[in-house]
Amino acid sequence: MQFFKVKTVEETFALIDEMIPATQQTEVRELSEALHYILAEPVTAKENVPGFDRSTVDGYAVRAKDTYGSSESMPGFLNVAGEVKMGEVPDVKVGRGQAVYVPTGGMLPVGSDSVMMIEHCEDVEGLLNTYKQVAPGENVIRAGEDIREGEILLEKGVKLRAQELGALASLGITHVTVFRKIKAGYLSSGDEIVPYQTENLSVGQIRDINGLTIAGLASDWNVEVVYGGIVRDDYEEFSQKARELYEQVDCLIMSGGSSVGAKDYTTEVIQSLGEPGVFVHGISIKPGKPTILAVADGKPVIGLPGHPASAMIIFKLFGERILKKLSGEHLVSKPGHIFAKITKNIPSSPGRSDYIRIRLEEKDGEWWAEPIIGKSGLITTLVKSDGIVEISSEKEGVSQGEYVPVILSR
Amino acid sequence: MQFFKVKTVEETFALIDEMIPATQQTEVRELSEALHYILAEPVTAKENVPGFDRSTVDGYAVRAKDTYGSSESMPGFLNVAGEVKMGEVPDVKVGRGQAVYVPTGGMLPVGSDSVMMIEHCEDVEGLLNTYKQVAPGENVIRAGEDIREGEILLEKGVKLRAQELGALASLGITHVTVFRKIKAGYLSSGDEIVPYQTENLSVGQIRDINGLTIAGLASDWNVEVVYGGIVRDDYEEFSQKARELYEQVDCLIMSGGSSVGAKDYTTEVIQSLGEPGVFVHGISIKPGKPTILAVADGKPVIGLPGHPASAMIIFKLFGERILKKLSGEHLVSKPGHIFAKITKNIPSSPGRSDYIRIRLEEKDGEWWAEPIIGKSGLITTLVKSDGIVEISSEKEGVSQGEYVPVILSR
Repeated sequence: MQFFKVKTVEETFALIDEMIPATQQTEVRELSEALHYILAEPVTAKENVPGFDRSTVDGYAVRAKDTYGSSESMPGFLNVAGEVKMGEVPDVKVGRGQAVYVPTGGMLPVGSDSVMMIEHCEDVEGLLNTYKQVAPGENVIRAGEDIREGEILLEKGVKLRAQELGALASLGITHVTVFRKIKAGYLSSGDEIVPYQTENLSVGQIRDINGLTIAGLASDWNVEVVYGGIVRDDYEEFSQKARELYEQVDCLIMSGGSSVGAKDYTTEVIQSLGEPGVFVHGISIKPGKPTILAVADGKPVIGLPGHPASAMIIFKLFGERILKKLSGEHLVSKPGHIFAKITKNIPSSPGRSDYIRIRLEEKDGEWWAEPIIGKSGLITTLVKSDGIVEISSEKEGVSQGEYVPVILSR
Repeated sequence: MQFFKVKTVEETFALIDEMIPATQQTEVRELSEALHYILAEPVTAKENVPGFDRSTVDGYAVRAKDTYGSSESMPGFLNVAGEVKMGEVPDVKVGRGQAVYVPTGGMLPVGSDSVMMIEHCEDVEGLLNTYKQVAPGENVIRAGEDIREGEILLEKGVKLRAQELGALASLGITHVTVFRKIKAGYLSSGDEIVPYQTENLSVGQIRDINGLTIAGLASDWNVEVVYGGIVRDDYEEFSQKARELYEQVDCLIMSGGSSVGAKDYTTEVIQSLGEPGVFVHGISIKPGKPTILAVADGKPVIGLPGHPASAMIIFKLFGERILKKLSGEHLVSKPGHIFAKITKNIPSSPGRSDYIRIRLEEKDGEWWAEPIIGKSGLITTLVKSDGIVEISSEKEGVSQGEYVPVILSR
């Protein structure tokens, strides 16, 4: 068997970025069904938004110049020449010394360049007393100021949040070309593992909970998980089930059997699926060292530790990155983490990244991270936690009051 | 008409907490369909997790006392008395001076109290050389150490994340009683508003994008939105459509017509729906002052500003709180916000809360918030933003380098 050197967390991320391909499969979706999908091609604006110069307040459209010098003590005077109705083209113009009423969202009449808010003037029988001056463009959104015709509104690889859908809708775009939703297969292995629906456990048995937790996390990343069941510690059965599931999905995830023999053939099974195979075998990380990452003929394969808590942490750290890369998302360093001050000294071995479960508390306008006591195998420590603190491999621990990055779990 | 005093943001939150009821409607869901639902009753553990003393490593089950004094230079010696198989009850005991092999996850044999990792000992023809000492309980998770029989595992009002599902599954719980998913109705009003599918706009028309953005945000909070369409600036039509939609849903959301007349009867329509009616009419906030909040016969009603960007910000701030309260979620002050340093001085009026769109950048292990230039009516400023910075009402702005709370938009 090939010899693998344990990788640092930093090396692992670099390898993921290098090895994991983005999906090429796209589909066209209606805007109302496209939330959280990834754009597969850039979107160019076909028209200006807004399509016309628009008032942002209820007020009077004026020529800014005509208001210069107006103040509470020395009001200016303009002649009210008419009114603009919502959703209609104004039938009046604004000449020198004139003002025309315009509601919020209404179209500016020809001749005007700004709007004076109704709070800053008073219509006294057709004579508008102006108590302030306005600058050209004040209280107006110009045609094309939000989105200009011909400009690229959204780049390929952008994740569609509510505001991106809104911007697309404002252009009258009803359908978008996005990358197809990724389908991941999940398989548990181990003689001791039984379905979580098992009511009474025999001694030594453990319910399979990774299938649920992994699917839960993946669904937050807009990935569908197909549950492939539990395989026994038997190479032939394991290999065949893994192959069957692999054929149906874009990415295969398994959580390893914990016996020594099982550990060995998990790697063999993964290697057998396709080229180039395993690129990470063991990460210098606590918890989660026995992690395997591979690519088999263009499909990522993730071998998670069997321990539920370790499996969740590893999947959150590396699985999220792999699945987002595979989904075609353009990855930017946006807050997957926040910074908090740690409440206690925590020692750590240099050369290894440690991930500590913490609870967050706000004190004096800052977040403090309180480590949760308990062995790393306990799922309840994750239930009690708001996130995990990373102590990176070049550090020998962190000191009380130090800023630490916290990966949130919600 | 009743007279309403503009509320501060802080007063508005306090009123929401006081006025919005939690739903009483529950349902039973299968665990795999319960992600992001809110528990409607506490869950008590019916058994211990784990059900037996379990090894967390591959190693040898021993009596800790027998290893005291062992070291690299002065190894101790134990007799290997057998082996524990995964998922099976050990058929051997550990007597004084004995050791039994046990795999990760295996059950501890009677007589042992700790496990020595294989890395720290060596089996030489049945004689185990021990190079380290172990403490009682080392590398062992005791029966009930993760979850103890009879204890309350999860409280009512807890939101089920992946780890909560995992903890429930570890107990063999397959179904949970949760609060039913909230259904919210959304209605746009205004003569100038047309469906976003409208290909060519007449001058003065604006596409309805709030329906999409509001539904997008709500779906992130596990709330379903029923789109009720667009109503014209006509009291009778508005009132009737609002009533019809209100009858079908748990919460009614509308974004207001922007003409002066429409503003008036939005309030009237809301007041007509039921008691006690409007409790916030105008918030001292920028953007989004003309916000209306009400409760009509137990159902929240939210009147948003018509401007898409303002509507999104107001809905994120107050709508999320209202819908979470209504969903039965036990609200805790967990990171809805992060802290970042602001890159520029920003002035603000005391007595008013300002929300500034920002882009986040990481510099020297901290997040910096860079304000996005652009008028508040522009949807593209939200597209470019990673979140919004709050400048609370008691402040007269913020200074460059100051820590500010950032509400993330993902």
